[in-house]
Amino acid sequence: MAFLPTPDDKFTFGLWTVGNPGRDPFGEPTRAGLAPAEIVELLDEAGGALGVNFHDNDLVPIDATQAEAATIKKDFAAALERTGLRVCMATTNLFGDPVFKDGAFTSNDADVRAYAVHKTMHAMDLGAEFGADVYVMWGGREGCETDAAKDPVESLNRYRDAVNFLCGYNAEKGYNFRFALEPKPNEPRGHIFLPTIGHCLAFIASLEHPDMVGVNPEVAHEHMAGLNFTHAVAMTLWAGKLFHIDLNDQAYGRYDQDFRFGSESPKAAFFLVKLLEDHGYSGYRHFDSHAYRTSDRADVIEFARGSMRTYLMLKDAAKRWNADAKIKEFLASMPQGGLLGKGGAPRTYSPGIAAELHGRAFDRAALASRPLPYEALDQRTIEILLGA
Amino acid sequence: MAFLPTPDDKFTFGLWTVGNPGRDPFGEPTRAGLAPAEIVELLDEAGGALGVNFHDNDLVPIDATQAEAATIKKDFAAALERTGLRVCMATTNLFGDPVFKDGAFTSNDADVRAYAVHKTMHAMDLGAEFGADVYVMWGGREGCETDAAKDPVESLNRYRDAVNFLCGYNAEKGYNFRFALEPKPNEPRGHIFLPTIGHCLAFIASLEHPDMVGVNPEVAHEHMAGLNFTHAVAMTLWAGKLFHIDLNDQAYGRYDQDFRFGSESPKAAFFLVKLLEDHGYSGYRHFDSHAYRTSDRADVIEFARGSMRTYLMLKDAAKRWNADAKIKEFLASMPQGGLLGKGGAPRTYSPGIAAELHGRAFDRAALASRPLPYEALDQRTIEILLGA
Amino acid sequence: MAFLPTPDDKFTFGLWTVGNPGRDPFGEPTRAGLAPAEIVELLDEAGGALGVNFHDNDLVPIDATQAEAATIKKDFAAALERTGLRVCMATTNLFGDPVFKDGAFTSNDADVRAYAVHKTMHAMDLGAEFGADVYVMWGGREGCETDAAKDPVESLNRYRDAVNFLCGYNAEKGYNFRFALEPKPNEPRGHIFLPTIGHCLAFIASLEHPDMVGVNPEVAHEHMAGLNFTHAVAMTLWAGKLFHIDLNDQAYGRYDQDFRFGSESPKAAFFLVKLLEDHGYSGYRHFDSHAYRTSDRADVIEFARGSMRTYLMLKDAAKRWNADAKIKEFLASMPQGGLLGKGGAPRTYSPGIAAELHGRAFDRAALASRPLPYEALDQRTIEILLGA
Amino acid sequence: MAFLPTPDDKFTFGLWTVGNPGRDPFGEPTRAGLAPAEIVELLDEAGGALGVNFHDNDLVPIDATQAEAATIKKDFAAALERTGLRVCMATTNLFGDPVFKDGAFTSNDADVRAYAVHKTMHAMDLGAEFGADVYVMWGGREGCETDAAKDPVESLNRYRDAVNFLCGYNAEKGYNFRFALEPKPNEPRGHIFLPTIGHCLAFIASLEHPDMVGVNPEVAHEHMAGLNFTHAVAMTLWAGKLFHIDLNDQAYGRYDQDFRFGSESPKAAFFLVKLLEDHGYSGYRHFDSHAYRTSDRADVIEFARGSMRTYLMLKDAAKRWNADAKIKEFLASMPQGGLLGKGGAPRTYSPGIAAELHGRAFDRAALASRPLPYEALDQRTIEILLGA
Repeated sequence: MAFLPTPDDKFTFGLWTVGNPGRDPFGEPTRAGLAPAEIVELLDEAGGALGVNFHDNDLVPIDATQAEAATIKKDFAAALERTGLRVCMATTNLFGDPVFKDGAFTSNDADVRAYAVHKTMHAMDLGAEFGADVYVMWGGREGCETDAAKDPVESLNRYRDAVNFLCGYNAEKGYNFRFALEPKPNEPRGHIFLPTIGHCLAFIASLEHPDMVGVNPEVAHEHMAGLNFTHAVAMTLWAGKLFHIDLNDQAYGRYDQDFRFGSESPKAAFFLVKLLEDHGYSGYRHFDSHAYRTSDRADVIEFARGSMRTYLMLKDAAKRWNADAKIKEFLASMPQGGLLGKGGAPRTYSPGIAAELHGRAFDRAALASRPLPYEALDQRTIEILLGA
Repeated sequence: MAFLPTPDDKFTFGLWTVGNPGRDPFGEPTRAGLAPAEIVELLDEAGGALGVNFHDNDLVPIDATQAEAATIKKDFAAALERTGLRVCMATTNLFGDPVFKDGAFTSNDADVRAYAVHKTMHAMDLGAEFGADVYVMWGGREGCETDAAKDPVESLNRYRDAVNFLCGYNAEKGYNFRFALEPKPNEPRGHIFLPTIGHCLAFIASLEHPDMVGVNPEVAHEHMAGLNFTHAVAMTLWAGKLFHIDLNDQAYGRYDQDFRFGSESPKAAFFLVKLLEDHGYSGYRHFDSHAYRTSDRADVIEFARGSMRTYLMLKDAAKRWNADAKIKEFLASMPQGGLLGKGGAPRTYSPGIAAELHGRAFDRAALASRPLPYEALDQRTIEILLGA
Repeated sequence: MAFLPTPDDKFTFGLWTVGNPGRDPFGEPTRAGLAPAEIVELLDEAGGALGVNFHDNDLVPIDATQAEAATIKKDFAAALERTGLRVCMATTNLFGDPVFKDGAFTSNDADVRAYAVHKTMHAMDLGAEFGADVYVMWGGREGCETDAAKDPVESLNRYRDAVNFLCGYNAEKGYNFRFALEPKPNEPRGHIFLPTIGHCLAFIASLEHPDMVGVNPEVAHEHMAGLNFTHAVAMTLWAGKLFHIDLNDQAYGRYDQDFRFGSESPKAAFFLVKLLEDHGYSGYRHFDSHAYRTSDRADVIEFARGSMRTYLMLKDAAKRWNADAKIKEFLASMPQGGLLGKGGAPRTYSPGIAAELHGRAFDRAALASRPLPYEALDQRTIEILLGA
Repeated sequence: MAFLPTPDDKFTFGLWTVGNPGRDPFGEPTRAGLAPAEIVELLDEAGGALGVNFHDNDLVPIDATQAEAATIKKDFAAALERTGLRVCMATTNLFGDPVFKDGAFTSNDADVRAYAVHKTMHAMDLGAEFGADVYVMWGGREGCETDAAKDPVESLNRYRDAVNFLCGYNAEKGYNFRFALEPKPNEPRGHIFLPTIGHCLAFIASLEHPDMVGVNPEVAHEHMAGLNFTHAVAMTLWAGKLFHIDLNDQAYGRYDQDFRFGSESPKAAFFLVKLLEDHGYSGYRHFDSHAYRTSDRADVIEFARGSMRTYLMLKDAAKRWNADAKIKEFLASMPQGGLLGKGGAPRTYSPGIAAELHGRAFDRAALASRPLPYEALDQRTIEILLGA
């Protein structure tokens, strides 16, 4: 099978992903830095992607003059025009400059907090200029190394104020961005506020414009906390908040690895793709990863192709799983019709129903002995996944 | 200093904690099982606690006859009367019996889901009978080992239905329980739904009676996911949802250890106690831990005493921290008045404020060079903590 | 493809694995306990295994009378005879009884240390009686919860004394056991001595009979420490110490999960199987895992079959990997002939070679720019693994 | 108490630690880079340290001309002379330059392996020139992201060849370096060879000059694998291989944090200091950490002072622990005289002793019931640590 991507698959990459030069905490860049337009060309060469995303400073360096900015934007727009790629998502770099060393929206320095909001407004302007409709907020510096330094309750107030204000700006300007908050538990800070998708969903419920704000779950970030990413995305879908998704891979309990999608935990990636497809997720599939530091330009292209190809292979496996006779048999054999079994807790409380349930007799031992052949089911899944 | 606890400190223990017989996955019990009344006596001997909490089956075994139940309850009530201890919190055992092997509220078997609700109603009756005002819900079996077995979106619907129903029962019966959901990422299931306090807070926002439901954060459970527990409690306080707290200790990324409070990570415990005291938390301080398997009855008593004593030592350290001249100086020296610094993102959006902020000039380098002496601040904290 | 196991594949299971009743720290058994002979029958029904292994007390309960022991052994022997299965490995239960609550060979109580050696001698007698040729030593209780309780240096002395003594016994009795030490980082103790295969290999070098002692690496145990299991086995092979292997699966940084081989991390399992097969490992492939607690007897049989089948599927994938033209091309394209490239540090030091190397000129930039297409190589691996 | 360090305490720092400019994977430097001589001045200002250590390229940039190198070395030597600080340990940077992107001694490229040995010889020359007597080898790039890329068995051969060769060079030149291998489980590579001190100890046993090579354990690196660092150092002491030590701190299961010693896990740091002092470790105490990215020069000095001060506070606490009457009572109360209890497995095997032990009768229940008051012991430890 070909597994060749097309724009209908809604695959996107960031300028910082395929353009990543391979610097890490212990080593210098291994690849030449590319201009934004050059990254668009690289992505076009990989083939099949829908779009390209950016942080404000991926496109326009933080210290660029207006003239430099104009030239860069013109070149970038021309590359988009030439290749047919488009900008789908934009976001703000609130982590690279030393000014953000203690946070942006939650910095202890009120002037830094103001600057962070100011910078985000300008970055939103830039995203809107290039037609992005999703705006991601990753608060990578919002946190601390020592709890002596910040009141974590007041920090959440500061965070909320900033997001509320930016929602106001979004509404006033008519940008219609769907904001997507991106959680991460740690790195580069010792502890980051809003560490998981659960925290983001809870935070959103406290906002002035909750409808305008959703979540951008990232495989690697939940895996850093050893959490099941499929469950994270499921809760996000359940809450109607899957506004964007960052696909990559990562071992549990490690530094931020940002590996190629499916390359560390293909079984987990399978269940994720199955969930997205089964639930009809219609948004972008953004690959927020970068090639190994050993890769050169040609291998970066293979990395981009492999990311998309693995998604399509897993989508095909999910289709085979759903159609598999044995799988269907297992699901049907389960008590009460298996996964779709209705019943249980009544959906609406009434004293009468409660009284009936309170008085009902249950045969615990009989219930406990009903077969749940999950080993057989999981083994069959492995066999479908491995193409056996 | 004495650091002797009194009931005003609101320290509580569970029947399953000081009564824990020392069984683990690889070994048999090392201590004799105690009757509930005997556990109350043990706790009274330790001295200073306010109350004792239970799962339904800690008090009344799941297969007890009505006559047996009556005797146990009478003995237990008499022990409470004798010692002055009282029941503060109750909860349901929805994990021990084989019937719950695939979950309770989220089991794939609708009859099991119904039984789980039925069992909880009876357990609420029992808790109310003994005067508990907090009711904890820990869904230890709500999860899976393989994502082939359960739809994680439908599982959240099932979970919500059950909690909504039980809120209805609470309202109808006039029990006035404050429900406290307790998250845990894994163990005994491979993955548990509602893995962190963030997920619980987000879940609560979806309920029919959100005001009736809060969270019961547990040190060990957030630490299993490598998350900062002080931040978890801070977000719970921020959301007005700290209905109960489980104090114990645990290394990150490990099996569920339930160690004595403060015994693994005393510095993290210090910040937690400081947070609770600074923010005026007035609820119970429940020690959800158990003595090492090597302990005998006398050492279990030392364990209970040590739990309370460590809390009081840390409370004293927090008081010294707040009063310390050097600490005050550090906080005051920070930009914009340090921790209490107001400003930054305006709390209310208006086009005029936005325009001003959009156009404001910032001197990034100057802002980045303002001193933030966090190493000195953290070192001073260590010295206060170590009593130097 | 059939992927049907035969005894030539050297697959073995333990009485405690397929006979596991499904008890866990939070719940009671979900399956009936089986007599040893019944477990042999179950394994025979699964089909294709070579042998069955035991802890002394899996076969003969610690408190069995001599008459009871004789009957059990007779029944077990008859089942082996009937099914053609044989005992390949034996080991000692030094963890279940309360007497071992503070360790066995490293207990602080000298009488317990003596008892542990005594019990192991008897267990070795039993293993020899049934023809085992590998003897595993897992020191699950050798450790501590608090470092206040044990001197970790003296503990290693105690550990070494016990192993040395038992080697003496092995030699005197002519049992010819190959001892295999099994590391684990934690659980059931807070910290276990000899936490990884590295520690075991280092420990062996200190023994009186180092040739008699090797290692029994277990997937789950290295994964608990977040370590690459394939590398662990590689170092064991490199040191000539792979005397046994425990195949199962487990997420990083979790409680001891003992999942079905390949069910959590199939890609890691692929590299492991490839390593074992490429390096001609000729020992037993022991599945040290147990079925989910939801499984009944029929599903336990599927679990056993799936374990073997997955190994065979991965062995087939490894064969396809080795034969793949693209893989060969990648390997050949690498600098200096790729994986087999010789050169680099001279194997033997001489002043002349050193002088030459010291004075040699290197073109760093040219070396750094040689292509290493590892993304392409890894993506090809994923595709072979997924059967694309 | 003053807790003021003196050179007799043997505290050392690296040029890369107090000179760290605060760059991280997501952000630019926050502090100005300092010349080696300036770092020596900073350390002198902090006061009390014995020495300063370096990687070859901390002192002389990889692309410096001979003239530049001469100037830098002269300035550095003058600063040492002026301040009385001396160089205690040297090491090689085999990770920063792109040439090492796939490893140094284990690169797949034989020319890179040769260059790595060449570079180390020159770095040893430099270390010897400045009087270092310990030479650390940290193989930070020796590993892989995908096991498709390297044979992990052959990699160990390559690693051994390189170390053997460099031992030959050390002997020929009469440098008398004590080599200290430094393990790390991951970061910057996905998986690093020789991930823990156990692996290093086992590796050393395979070398041509095992006496010349020991280990350099680092708190942060063992903690990344969730391992007890005190146990790691204990095994190193037990094997006579503690040639150096890197003191810092780090949460389990995280990116490499390199926090100030004792700042994350003061209780673990206490047991470590107690072990080092109780066992009379006489080598350097090297602080391999760096100040938070928020720190300026003044705060870096506080960081350095705090590192030493915390060590001295913990040393004092260990002295109080050893002298504490209650602690002594606990230890004495344990079975068989507690920690020093002799007995157990006889140290020398003989058939007669074996026969006696084989036939001895044990009262399991009686042994199991002997008291081990470890909760009381650990709580007392906490109280001593907190200065209560």
